Amino acid sequence: MKNLLVAQSGGPTAAINASLAGVISGALKEEGIDKIYGAVYGIEGVLNDNLKELNTLDLDILKQTPAAYLGSCRKKLPKVSDNPELYQQTFSYFAEKNIGYFLYIGGNDSMDTVCKLSDYAKEHNIDVKIIGVPKTIDNDLAITDHTPGFGSAAKYVATTVAEIAEDSMVYDLKSVTIVEIMGRHAGWLTGAAALARNKNRSAPHLIYLPEVAFSKEQFVKDIQSLFEKEIHQVIVAVSEGIHDENGKLICEGGTSATDSFGHAMLSGAGKALENLVKAELGCKARSVELNVCQRCAAHLLSKTDILEAFAIGEAGVAQAVAGHSGEMMVFTRTSDSPYQMKIESADIHKSANVEKCVPTDWIVNGNDVTDDLITYLKPLIAGEVAVRFDENGLPKHLYR
Amino acid sequence: MKNLLVAQSGGPTAAINASLAGVISGALKEEGIDKIYGAVYGIEGVLNDNLKELNTLDLDILKQTPAAYLGSCRKKLPKVSDNPELYQQTFSYFAEKNIGYFLYIGGNDSMDTVCKLSDYAKEHNIDVKIIGVPKTIDNDLAITDHTPGFGSAAKYVATTVAEIAEDSMVYDLKSVTIVEIMGRHAGWLTGAAALARNKNRSAPHLIYLPEVAFSKEQFVKDIQSLFEKEIHQVIVAVSEGIHDENGKLICEGGTSATDSFGHAMLSGAGKALENLVKAELGCKARSVELNVCQRCAAHLLSKTDILEAFAIGEAGVAQAVAGHSGEMMVFTRTSDSPYQMKIESADIHKSANVEKCVPTDWIVNGNDVTDDLITYLKPLIAGEVAVRFDENGLPKHLYR
Repeated sequence: MKNLLVAQSGGPTAAINASLAGVISGALKEEGIDKIYGAVYGIEGVLNDNLKELNTLDLDILKQTPAAYLGSCRKKLPKVSDNPELYQQTFSYFAEKNIGYFLYIGGNDSMDTVCKLSDYAKEHNIDVKIIGVPKTIDNDLAITDHTPGFGSAAKYVATTVAEIAEDSMVYDLKSVTIVEIMGRHAGWLTGAAALARNKNRSAPHLIYLPEVAFSKEQFVKDIQSLFEKEIHQVIVAVSEGIHDENGKLICEGGTSATDSFGHAMLSGAGKALENLVKAELGCKARSVELNVCQRCAAHLLSKTDILEAFAIGEAGVAQAVAGHSGEMMVFTRTSDSPYQMKIESADIHKSANVEKCVPTDWIVNGNDVTDDLITYLKPLIAGEVAVRFDENGLPKHLYR
Repeated sequence: MKNLLVAQSGGPTAAINASLAGVISGALKEEGIDKIYGAVYGIEGVLNDNLKELNTLDLDILKQTPAAYLGSCRKKLPKVSDNPELYQQTFSYFAEKNIGYFLYIGGNDSMDTVCKLSDYAKEHNIDVKIIGVPKTIDNDLAITDHTPGFGSAAKYVATTVAEIAEDSMVYDLKSVTIVEIMGRHAGWLTGAAALARNKNRSAPHLIYLPEVAFSKEQFVKDIQSLFEKEIHQVIVAVSEGIHDENGKLICEGGTSATDSFGHAMLSGAGKALENLVKAELGCKARSVELNVCQRCAAHLLSKTDILEAFAIGEAGVAQAVAGHSGEMMVFTRTSDSPYQMKIESADIHKSANVEKCVPTDWIVNGNDVTDDLITYLKPLIAGEVAVRFDENGLPKHLYR
């Protein structure tokens, strides 16, 4: 009998706890697994002996709890040659706790940790199976069709952009509303704003992704052109990471500004564009930064995302128990319509540290996305989760 | 047989269309009412002959549609003596359209319109019954216990603050997260952030309302004091309208700053406090402006709010048909627990242009609220609405 260790790492998502629930569920099914430990604050919990037993958690409530139940970290492990003691310490701790399986749920940096630890274990003939379970709202992991957490964030973005569009249309005057969406290098989530469109709603009218250069002159022309077409309430979706042709971020440059207390102030891309519109076009303009809400709004979940996040966690355990190590679990799509997806695994070396961006041929005129992107995205936000609320009218969450 | 006219005015809410649905439902029940007209863009639709027939709308979808289905305006009518022609035009238009009843759904400015029009009608013996139906997320209307739209906004605020709190706790480091909430003069909605607390969640730890003066020195001390109590991830709820003892807004003063395009830039209260924390305490700080989402997030509705918003719309029609005019419909609370509320009406002169703020004895130490406020707020966010989604995974909305 071996114990299983699971940890969460990187930025929170609304689905990372569904994957944790999947890992726990998968481990409970395995006769060869005794205790299920969670490391608190990611790999830090391993280095600091901060574990928690997870065998009896309420998985249904865990699945609808946002952020990382176990806590997280942003630690990137050093190379083995730079700090061999750290690796020795880690694996002797694993031995002490009788850990046979280590599941790490996270994004790019976390897959780097899986890569380094599993390489070390193989090299030193240590029998700990290490498997990565992907998550990130950015959807920027290579090899996998998409990442758990992205679908729920995308559903929140599309829904919120739709609601903001209704809000902007109540007054009979020209206005520009800019919605700033997360994604420094990858525009997947900003592209998901396009899912707000339907036969009655043309918003968002303009979508700017970080994969192509942004021109403020062209942006102003794009809005003027919509005004000329009698579209008077313009909704714009922009990635936080939009930048000019020299790579300079649109949200940069405001650092010399100071606020009311005399402190340096950085405006986001949305705020910068709001000011640009006011100055250049003289019409009403506002910006809405979706901010952390887009990654933690667990009251609005994609059913597809939560089911898949759970399933990939379960599959990760099965893969480890089957003797695999140094792999990341991945989704492989076999059909768009009907949507069909299978869970496989890939060599961790192929996915760690590789960032997957929106293909530039899925971007039109620098200000919109193609139907290919919409076809890709649509199934990921399908279905709703009937979130359970407490007697005070708030969603139930599980606490560590 | 007379026709009924209804219009919506002021800022959008997630419940104003539930009141519109209630008015339509109430009018459909009245044998003395023939056509139900909606004026598009509030009173502007009356002045510009822009009406829409509403007898056959899908009321269930209307009830879950955010913003103002009919469009809105921010027009305040002039005094009769300043522009008698406008009043003559309005009432001859009513005569032409055979309008016997006019229901105006809105906030403070809209109740002023109800007041002026009903006074004029009485003075000139014109048989049009004019009734105000309240709405505003700010909850700042006098006489009524609370306003439709507030409960859903409060539920969104409490839920989102809870989710942001979970998000902030994932890392094992000191951080301050400031959530900026709407309400320039009245702190009801910011106070609703307190509803995020439960036996496992102490956030929000600090709450600043615009009813009392804000001191940046005290604010920094308040946070330091929490750090000393080992509360390391501090969540702060602030009203957009917080101001110093001289009445100067905290969000003011940044106007001399310029952004990356050289344009003037105004930071919100949250952003200003985020910068203050970074400068004074040197810890991680971020701010989240809930922005328009808090008034249009119709995917997360308070069941109590939507039922009441519908009921008060229906009651407004009955009141008009019973021969009343120059009144605003109001909620009167008869019990907190169990929550019991009845719908009455009040002379419009008592409510128009009077702003209701949070009683200062419901504010503790300038940085928290009392249990009295929580007892008052709790029933208003109770219950959930099973929002209907379309086949693409987005909430269904009704389009004009």
